[in-house]
Amino acid sequence: MIIKLSQSSTEATLNTLTQWFAQQGVEVRKVVLENQVLLVTSSKWRGDTSYLNSVEGVESVVDTGTEYQLCTRKFQNQDTVIDLGGGVVFGRGCTILMAGPCAVESEEQVMRTAEFLRSKFDIKVFRAGAFKPRTSPYSFQGLADEGLRLLEKVRENFGMKIITEVKDTTHLDAVADVADIIQIGTKAMYNFSLLAFCGQLEKPIVLKRGFMTTIKEFLQAADFIMSNGNSKVILCERGIRSFEPQTRFCLDVCAAALVKELSHLPIVLDPSHAMGIAAQVPLVAQSAAALGIDGLLIETHPDPANAKSDKEQALSFEQFSQMVPVLDRICTAVGRTLVA
Amino acid sequence: MIIKLSQSSTEATLNTLTQWFAQQGVEVRKVVLENQVLLVTSSKWRGDTSYLNSVEGVESVVDTGTEYQLCTRKFQNQDTVIDLGGGVVFGRGCTILMAGPCAVESEEQVMRTAEFLRSKFDIKVFRAGAFKPRTSPYSFQGLADEGLRLLEKVRENFGMKIITEVKDTTHLDAVADVADIIQIGTKAMYNFSLLAFCGQLEKPIVLKRGFMTTIKEFLQAADFIMSNGNSKVILCERGIRSFEPQTRFCLDVCAAALVKELSHLPIVLDPSHAMGIAAQVPLVAQSAAALGIDGLLIETHPDPANAKSDKEQALSFEQFSQMVPVLDRICTAVGRTLVA
Amino acid sequence: MIIKLSQSSTEATLNTLTQWFAQQGVEVRKVVLENQVLLVTSSKWRGDTSYLNSVEGVESVVDTGTEYQLCTRKFQNQDTVIDLGGGVVFGRGCTILMAGPCAVESEEQVMRTAEFLRSKFDIKVFRAGAFKPRTSPYSFQGLADEGLRLLEKVRENFGMKIITEVKDTTHLDAVADVADIIQIGTKAMYNFSLLAFCGQLEKPIVLKRGFMTTIKEFLQAADFIMSNGNSKVILCERGIRSFEPQTRFCLDVCAAALVKELSHLPIVLDPSHAMGIAAQVPLVAQSAAALGIDGLLIETHPDPANAKSDKEQALSFEQFSQMVPVLDRICTAVGRTLVA
Amino acid sequence: MIIKLSQSSTEATLNTLTQWFAQQGVEVRKVVLENQVLLVTSSKWRGDTSYLNSVEGVESVVDTGTEYQLCTRKFQNQDTVIDLGGGVVFGRGCTILMAGPCAVESEEQVMRTAEFLRSKFDIKVFRAGAFKPRTSPYSFQGLADEGLRLLEKVRENFGMKIITEVKDTTHLDAVADVADIIQIGTKAMYNFSLLAFCGQLEKPIVLKRGFMTTIKEFLQAADFIMSNGNSKVILCERGIRSFEPQTRFCLDVCAAALVKELSHLPIVLDPSHAMGIAAQVPLVAQSAAALGIDGLLIETHPDPANAKSDKEQALSFEQFSQMVPVLDRICTAVGRTLVA
Repeated sequence: MIIKLSQSSTEATLNTLTQWFAQQGVEVRKVVLENQVLLVTSSKWRGDTSYLNSVEGVESVVDTGTEYQLCTRKFQNQDTVIDLGGGVVFGRGCTILMAGPCAVESEEQVMRTAEFLRSKFDIKVFRAGAFKPRTSPYSFQGLADEGLRLLEKVRENFGMKIITEVKDTTHLDAVADVADIIQIGTKAMYNFSLLAFCGQLEKPIVLKRGFMTTIKEFLQAADFIMSNGNSKVILCERGIRSFEPQTRFCLDVCAAALVKELSHLPIVLDPSHAMGIAAQVPLVAQSAAALGIDGLLIETHPDPANAKSDKEQALSFEQFSQMVPVLDRICTAVGRTLVA
Repeated sequence: MIIKLSQSSTEATLNTLTQWFAQQGVEVRKVVLENQVLLVTSSKWRGDTSYLNSVEGVESVVDTGTEYQLCTRKFQNQDTVIDLGGGVVFGRGCTILMAGPCAVESEEQVMRTAEFLRSKFDIKVFRAGAFKPRTSPYSFQGLADEGLRLLEKVRENFGMKIITEVKDTTHLDAVADVADIIQIGTKAMYNFSLLAFCGQLEKPIVLKRGFMTTIKEFLQAADFIMSNGNSKVILCERGIRSFEPQTRFCLDVCAAALVKELSHLPIVLDPSHAMGIAAQVPLVAQSAAALGIDGLLIETHPDPANAKSDKEQALSFEQFSQMVPVLDRICTAVGRTLVA
Repeated sequence: MIIKLSQSSTEATLNTLTQWFAQQGVEVRKVVLENQVLLVTSSKWRGDTSYLNSVEGVESVVDTGTEYQLCTRKFQNQDTVIDLGGGVVFGRGCTILMAGPCAVESEEQVMRTAEFLRSKFDIKVFRAGAFKPRTSPYSFQGLADEGLRLLEKVRENFGMKIITEVKDTTHLDAVADVADIIQIGTKAMYNFSLLAFCGQLEKPIVLKRGFMTTIKEFLQAADFIMSNGNSKVILCERGIRSFEPQTRFCLDVCAAALVKELSHLPIVLDPSHAMGIAAQVPLVAQSAAALGIDGLLIETHPDPANAKSDKEQALSFEQFSQMVPVLDRICTAVGRTLVA
Repeated sequence: MIIKLSQSSTEATLNTLTQWFAQQGVEVRKVVLENQVLLVTSSKWRGDTSYLNSVEGVESVVDTGTEYQLCTRKFQNQDTVIDLGGGVVFGRGCTILMAGPCAVESEEQVMRTAEFLRSKFDIKVFRAGAFKPRTSPYSFQGLADEGLRLLEKVRENFGMKIITEVKDTTHLDAVADVADIIQIGTKAMYNFSLLAFCGQLEKPIVLKRGFMTTIKEFLQAADFIMSNGNSKVILCERGIRSFEPQTRFCLDVCAAALVKELSHLPIVLDPSHAMGIAAQVPLVAQSAAALGIDGLLIETHPDPANAKSDKEQALSFEQFSQMVPVLDRICTAVGRTLVA
């Protein structure tokens, strides 16, 4: 249950409500989202809404009927818009093409990639990981702080926005200093402390669905961030694990279609990780774009064969170049504008 | 291993080869596909190809390196084209929109649907099931032969081609008499006798991937049909079962993208069964069409709320009407023509 | 809804009820199970049970609240007992060890195996397939009728009961002539015509759960058989398909535990197919036996390395011999008797 | 590749090897496990082992052939033994029954539970979470530090060892101060910083398999801990997510059976989370115990109906009491001793 306080509500309103809930033994969480004060109870609590509505300073009481609350259209019907400036707007009819290599490997590698993306297609958001969550302790784990510095250079030299991944809380501050958009990866989606800390930031958060995560749990994770005060959450579907061994993951377009209806948050898709095979990534990107989504994350590398991580799925510049005009036409076909 | 005999090969060629294989204890299967005689061994057999190539009448020897053989691009690189006349061609740049209700329920229901589809959008292929593979013995199992007669009426009255499902071998003859395209449903994909019998027919077969079937098993099922002599197989991805409870199935666009590369057979997608919720079916259909595929199967019903099976996923005529122009634009965007 | 007629019910009772249902437009199915006449409606129908209970000849009306009806403990609480004679009783505290090779390959092979099993462990049920549902058209498909004749010889020579698989309806009569227990394999579980025909037989049916089948669908399949008149259904859990590539399937012990509570039917487990690796099959068999189940299906072969199908999972006679005493102790530990 | 240095190896040995690898551009990681110095390369590196073997101070070079290295039997064949004193020994033929509530809720609750477990069954390891990784931000998140203090009281009053969960790095120090065994939960298994920090501790770590984690990734996570210096890793299978809605998870006994062969680390199973329904937990616990494993984690609560988390799966004291003697007999049947 969400109790929305009006702008004219006072401290007294809050006290009245807090005491009332305390008397009933109901925990309630105060959330401030975009200057709007909310009190949120457990999603299971069903109580006396007529009383709540009668309290002065209460604007409305919303029962979303679901275990996720703040991210739903029941709470806010209109799409959340996240505007980073420079034409990068999520949630208002654009499909933002975010591209770059899986990992920051070297200055030469990121600069070549950024130069290609910016000069040839005017790509506005550069993606690359400095902290890589690798399953093997013996694999390349990313350049860490050195990688972040290289990403800053990309922004300075090419005026691109930077999206980069945070693995866990140990390096969140460092990432938050540099990133324009912070990405919570699929393996970190259940790291609830990380979600809470990201909720205390002002920067937009791309939240990737875990590859074994139900829609319910995915949206609950979004609520974890939002209930800590950050309304700038961008959902990302990046493929679920299936029984099929020949594809890396299975891009769940049915879930993406449903999430668009359930939530007011922007949604982007990551065809690269889902497919895992470069030759088919453009087809899957087409399939994703046709859903009418807010963005795409695509991996490209100047020399895929020698990439230090996920080389099988990185597009060559040539493959990338052939893909963009098709994506552009598809976005138009579904009433969107490809921002690339 | 596939041994391709040349048009000039004689009975003697066949005898020589058969005896040679018999001496080695290798089982070999004679297959005639489009007047081309082939001998096919187990996919695991690796033997003396230089000898085989030297036999007079042998055109070539193909080792596909996979457990499916006849359906692969290693055996035949160019796309298989299946032309049913009247503009219904699979495998040559068209996306055929096949539509109709899940099940034949009554004359009025199929006639109203066919009338709508034909007059408003010139849909050329009508889909509806007369034999329904329902998991409950107490559910509506289809009108059976009566249903087939109604489908014949649709063809007569509206000049549409009919695609309808066969559940198992008991009614294959009846279905084959009426259908222009025979559909093997997802629950029948492992019915190997059914596959073999369909292989002895001349009619095109839409083979639906089982919802728990790997790409390998799916293509082996296609080989089951083809190795019995029928080259007119159309593959159909219709969603796999995942852990997600809010969607009916998960349309596996990654698998579809890969199958396009692995096999020369046409491929169609079924967004209705995958999504299972009418409101999202058009979005998922968009996503499917953007892959550049040979067809779509869409369920529509004059009165979805009262449909006798799968009513949650049937589009109303209004929803269907809104979807078609978007699909048309997407097909154009990916260089295809929507045949609808 | 199940309407149970009393032994004293007459044709008039049936007529009254049938007419009443017809007036309401409710389809109702007459089922005779063990001389008990039942009328079964769709599981969704909820109607005037007080009227139904008032009709003379109606013993009771059962609403199981589930989509499967006849196989539930709500309909019949006490365990179904299936007694084949010779100490082979399912459902009364025994764990029947059924063993043999995957496929009948030759007289020598089945005779050696049967001789070993019977003389060394007094195994009473011999398993082997004559009709093999193989995913590749180029693999060994079984000896068919010749295989059935060899199984008859096993029975004659060793006095063992025979359990063997039916793939589909084309050879059901042949299998039913020979088998003491007919096995419907995992790939045939959705073959509803096959289920219906098996329901018209008197022989016990082992129904294997599909490898991606929910418990609900599994029990609905049991109802398919039972609603055609055969109450002798034995459920079999044999592993579900998961994302894990290193094991063949995943034996679903949680589902088996739940099925024991939901259904009164006997349940057996197949560790061989689930695990798929001979070295671990005994451990998984231990795990299965500890559930307190009615039987185990184990594959063993005189020469696993040269088995014509599923050779990776067949136990050598030595492995089998080491396993039996452990299973025996586990059965005792859980209050069962291993019949081997 | 693992290079094992002999006890007589010197700093010079290390320098020689480090330089040699540096010249080849191969990253190598120095690991000290139980006073044994190792150099570990990427699992993919294949190089001149004859040179490596010739270097003075090199005891042996091991190529495990797998992407996990330190945890395999190829590296160390004999079982790892972890002895916590007081009869709690993992890896030497015992099955340690670890029990307690899901979460620490109150002093009364943990004390009542501990008193029951200790006095009635002499349970030696008490389990309960102070930091709960809940998917909803509005659910009970655990008593945190207050919970840890209550667990210390359990140890003081009842002499039990404490196993409790760490969610992420933010509270690892607090948990490590109190716990005798630190549990990394299923949702934290991919938190690589957490794994690394746990690798720097001396305390035993129970590592739960992610619910959609392959065996390979699971064992790589164990290597993450071990390669940071902690050899005391206990693997835990707790159920994988499947398509089945009626059970919470699916206990993967096939994977557990295989892990026993692949790894020298102790393995324990968690039937409570896997099954998720109290009535069936004892059956699943039986199934787990019959695998011959090193321990079981079982949830029990003085008043399950009012538990603050996972109440559906908590055994009442009566259910628990009925289960223990059966588990005891099964352990004996498989040559183990139940430590309870």
